[in-house]
Amino acid sequence: MSMVIGKSKAGEKTGEDAHKSANVPATKSRDGRDRLLYGAGRLLAERGYAGMELRDVAERGEAPRGSIYHHFPGGKAQLATEAAELDGVRIRIGIERSLVERGLKETLARFGEIFRKQASNDPSRIGCPVAAAALARPEDPALAAAATAAFESWEGAIAAALEREGVAADRAATFAAMVVSTVEGALVRTRAAGDLAPLDSAIAGLGQSLDSLLAEAK
Amino acid sequence: MSMVIGKSKAGEKTGEDAHKSANVPATKSRDGRDRLLYGAGRLLAERGYAGMELRDVAERGEAPRGSIYHHFPGGKAQLATEAAELDGVRIRIGIERSLVERGLKETLARFGEIFRKQASNDPSRIGCPVAAAALARPEDPALAAAATAAFESWEGAIAAALEREGVAADRAATFAAMVVSTVEGALVRTRAAGDLAPLDSAIAGLGQSLDSLLAEAK
Repeated sequence: MSMVIGKSKAGEKTGEDAHKSANVPATKSRDGRDRLLYGAGRLLAERGYAGMELRDVAERGEAPRGSIYHHFPGGKAQLATEAAELDGVRIRIGIERSLVERGLKETLARFGEIFRKQASNDPSRIGCPVAAAALARPEDPALAAAATAAFESWEGAIAAALEREGVAADRAATFAAMVVSTVEGALVRTRAAGDLAPLDSAIAGLGQSLDSLLAEAK
Repeated sequence: MSMVIGKSKAGEKTGEDAHKSANVPATKSRDGRDRLLYGAGRLLAERGYAGMELRDVAERGEAPRGSIYHHFPGGKAQLATEAAELDGVRIRIGIERSLVERGLKETLARFGEIFRKQASNDPSRIGCPVAAAALARPEDPALAAAATAAFESWEGAIAAALEREGVAADRAATFAAMVVSTVEGALVRTRAAGDLAPLDSAIAGLGQSLDSLLAEAK
């Protein structure tokens, strides 16, 4: 899942939703290291780990290519791992905040809106930087481990919200794990379809199942 | 989703489950074209489209590399598209047969078993050839279209089974779409985790939600 979308006033793509949630300053004031991480996250989502070229990361981050090894001596692997970790944390913070403000049903609907905005230019480029990191295994276990930690943190936030609504802990954990898998799978399908129908169906299916879960908890 | 697993008597890997379902002959008697398609499907699942090297396809299919362009004048793109189409059809046939024989709940459980066998050597290599094709967009729209057609055919089979069990058509379609996305997302997460816990959770979550759906339909 990527919640990083929108455009800054300068017309440069930034991660408005996610960055606001995480109190990350706007692109212009971020330093070179942050800009490189931002560029790496976007390219991971769009092209996957194999397709993430360092020259494109530098261009997307508006940073000199030579600065990559200054900030990330471990090169591409370090850059991708830190980008996936950072996006994982940003998304978790966004999920937690939305759950408190809106509850799970509206948070699911909001996922749909966020992806709709992200995909408005080109649904066939939609993707999740964390899923891209996930697919790096077995070539890069550290990157895959960062992805798993992120997925589990999102699950944890959703399970906690379900428990607050009266769902038993085991059912809450199972449902939360399904939510994360469903949204990730829907992104793969959306990319293939080139339109948002698979994502809409997945969100609708989760909403339908959530209604049943909550009704049974009462 | 890949249902292609197991070993033939000759010790050569074949797709026992899926091939039995689709009445595809065992590896030894298949011709070179089929063997290349089989090799391409496995490599797509394990390494993705970018990582599918023609020399490895030839090796996996036990076919001379020069035979690839004889059978597939369109090269890698044609080979991958046909492999994804073929696996899409095999999996649909497997799903339909299992739904008739076992119903949806047991079919979901069977997905879990099949992937458990497939992953027993190395969960970090688990993958779905159709999802790999899905991620080829926007570079290769024909490949992505083959993936979407496969996903939709699986959905259609599952929705029809739900309707037979009394679920209203719109709810059946929504749930079926969610099932396919959930399993695909769980495969991404399983690969990242290097163990089958994400797949087990996803199957359990779908089973839990299916119970609610069927109870409400009564």
